[in-house]
Amino acid sequence: MSQTEQEKIVEDFQSSPLNQPGKEFPKVNSEGRLRVQIEAPEANKVQLDIGGVKYDLEKNEKGIWEGESAPQDEGFHYYQLNIDGASVPDPGSKYFYGAYRWGSGIEIPASDKEFYALKDVPHGTVSENLYFSEITKQWRRNFVYTPPGYFEDTEKRYPVLYLQHGSYEDETGSASQGHTNLILDNLIASGKAKPMIIVMDNGYAYSPEDLKEAGGNRPPSSFEKVLIEEVIPHIDKKFRTIPNRENRAIAGLSMGASQTMAIIMNNLDYFSYYGGFSGTANFPGDKELDAETFLNGAFSDAKEVESKLKVLFLGLGTKEAEVFFKTVNAFRDMLENKGIDYTFYSSPDTSHEWLTWRRSLHQYAQLLFK
Amino acid sequence: MSQTEQEKIVEDFQSSPLNQPGKEFPKVNSEGRLRVQIEAPEANKVQLDIGGVKYDLEKNEKGIWEGESAPQDEGFHYYQLNIDGASVPDPGSKYFYGAYRWGSGIEIPASDKEFYALKDVPHGTVSENLYFSEITKQWRRNFVYTPPGYFEDTEKRYPVLYLQHGSYEDETGSASQGHTNLILDNLIASGKAKPMIIVMDNGYAYSPEDLKEAGGNRPPSSFEKVLIEEVIPHIDKKFRTIPNRENRAIAGLSMGASQTMAIIMNNLDYFSYYGGFSGTANFPGDKELDAETFLNGAFSDAKEVESKLKVLFLGLGTKEAEVFFKTVNAFRDMLENKGIDYTFYSSPDTSHEWLTWRRSLHQYAQLLFK
Repeated sequence: MSQTEQEKIVEDFQSSPLNQPGKEFPKVNSEGRLRVQIEAPEANKVQLDIGGVKYDLEKNEKGIWEGESAPQDEGFHYYQLNIDGASVPDPGSKYFYGAYRWGSGIEIPASDKEFYALKDVPHGTVSENLYFSEITKQWRRNFVYTPPGYFEDTEKRYPVLYLQHGSYEDETGSASQGHTNLILDNLIASGKAKPMIIVMDNGYAYSPEDLKEAGGNRPPSSFEKVLIEEVIPHIDKKFRTIPNRENRAIAGLSMGASQTMAIIMNNLDYFSYYGGFSGTANFPGDKELDAETFLNGAFSDAKEVESKLKVLFLGLGTKEAEVFFKTVNAFRDMLENKGIDYTFYSSPDTSHEWLTWRRSLHQYAQLLFK
Repeated sequence: MSQTEQEKIVEDFQSSPLNQPGKEFPKVNSEGRLRVQIEAPEANKVQLDIGGVKYDLEKNEKGIWEGESAPQDEGFHYYQLNIDGASVPDPGSKYFYGAYRWGSGIEIPASDKEFYALKDVPHGTVSENLYFSEITKQWRRNFVYTPPGYFEDTEKRYPVLYLQHGSYEDETGSASQGHTNLILDNLIASGKAKPMIIVMDNGYAYSPEDLKEAGGNRPPSSFEKVLIEEVIPHIDKKFRTIPNRENRAIAGLSMGASQTMAIIMNNLDYFSYYGGFSGTANFPGDKELDAETFLNGAFSDAKEVESKLKVLFLGLGTKEAEVFFKTVNAFRDMLENKGIDYTFYSSPDTSHEWLTWRRSLHQYAQLLFK
């Protein structure tokens, strides 16, 4: 896609706050365009690849290529450069894990960005926590957010939210692209959310036996088993949690929404709050759901579900792909047919990306442990 | 530099443990060669750039370029790819901050790698700690290692080591490339080091006034002021430290060695242990040092220095550049002329890189708080 002369570009580009120290490019303008620049004097063709579209860059006399994308939606976007057919990260940006790779990211400032901004409020702490999994026979890790005051007041105990990433993501995303820590810091400071611990683990977990049996393919994840038998006991031992179902919540985004819905309905003695951001356990599907059979009938008894689930929260961006709407709507229809109460949040003008998930967390966290 | 037919390459390459999930390349062989691969069908020239040498890759019929470096020293090395003149990270590797950029890294396994390996021992925790600096008028952060048991036993207090990075590095390196947490976990498990807290901050710190005055240049760092007036009080308030000079150590590598030597000699009421890895405060220089004037005469009174500094440790790799030898030797000569006791550690066959600094920390940590 080439830039036409008709296109008027607003020349108010600013260096992205996600840039590496000292780097001027990439830049973003008020329309949400991304402008990149890279020196590649001997290249034949350099492109910016963002949102599934490749934009040709143009070379100047110094061998520096420059160009910009069409306006992007508010929120976080992965992108890459393409240099004579090689897809590589932009050396100007910091790197984020998503789309099954560490790659470049850009933020198009959102109108409501204040809720996840770094502000002059007391801050919690994100800690990297290593544990050995006997199930996967590997060292694994999670990131643990502890609320402001956790380190200073060594008596107080807290409820815990287990928060899971999506497909081709990992345990690093929530506290990086997701700004989970800043969202909670701001909510806690304003009294809108209870202080809580948040555990962000990796939803991919395979036993050596399952891997062997799958013979090179990806076997079903044993994350439910790892979470229930290993992660929760480890967290309850190491951190000052309130270790009961009334003080344990779970949530996930996309694949994580699907995964955690199955986990909570199999383990209602462990959790009493569910949040599904951009997904439900019937993904991908638009078929009418039969409450008697879906997840082994976990939603068949409305009274039982409502007595166990203090919150059943669903979030979705208005610009998400149709499959997410169809999936989540089929699930909502089932709940409504059954008369099961739930909370639905619609994120305006966002797609299947981090701004939808930040906003969903921001809503969901306010409902927890109250 | 092209590969000649005479060169025999040992074909026992293995995927690097620093690769991104699921990536086969880069690979390393038993000679310490790095082999990279990248698809770039339309490129004219692709090179691997490591250790100051560019190696031409060769293209196969599928448009995939492949090639390898000469054998590299044991330890950690930054590298990049060069595609038709564009210097970019390798999309196969994870990324590390050093050399003033987030870039690709490779590890050539060291013969003594066990001391920094992830083992079945109790593990400490690395936490990201945010604080607002009134001096720089910015949110800053450090990473804090707390030893095994810190979270579980909420009574015990610990001594603290402040550990600083080198030039064009930042607060992330020590717990990533440096394996500081694993080195301490292993030392503590074997009883060779006392359990301690380690604080890794960013040595670049500029006040708005200094930045304005420097007019685009880099002003002198205010890190000493930030450390003494802001970081230490913050750490002593938030973490269970033993807040006195007998239980406070400082160390740094390269620029950090120079910076922390000045800091400790200006603040002997704060610290009683010094470690300088690959550097001293007279860098870069081979001039004879006059103890009466160097650092305002801080080393002029041998008795005073020895009564205040319980450990004065210097570490250096045998393959470091001459300037580091000359600098450190000039400093050692001054100490010897003065009759000031110190510990010198020589890291065999390593250059100015992380294996030298891991080994130096491994030696130094065993001397602390005893």
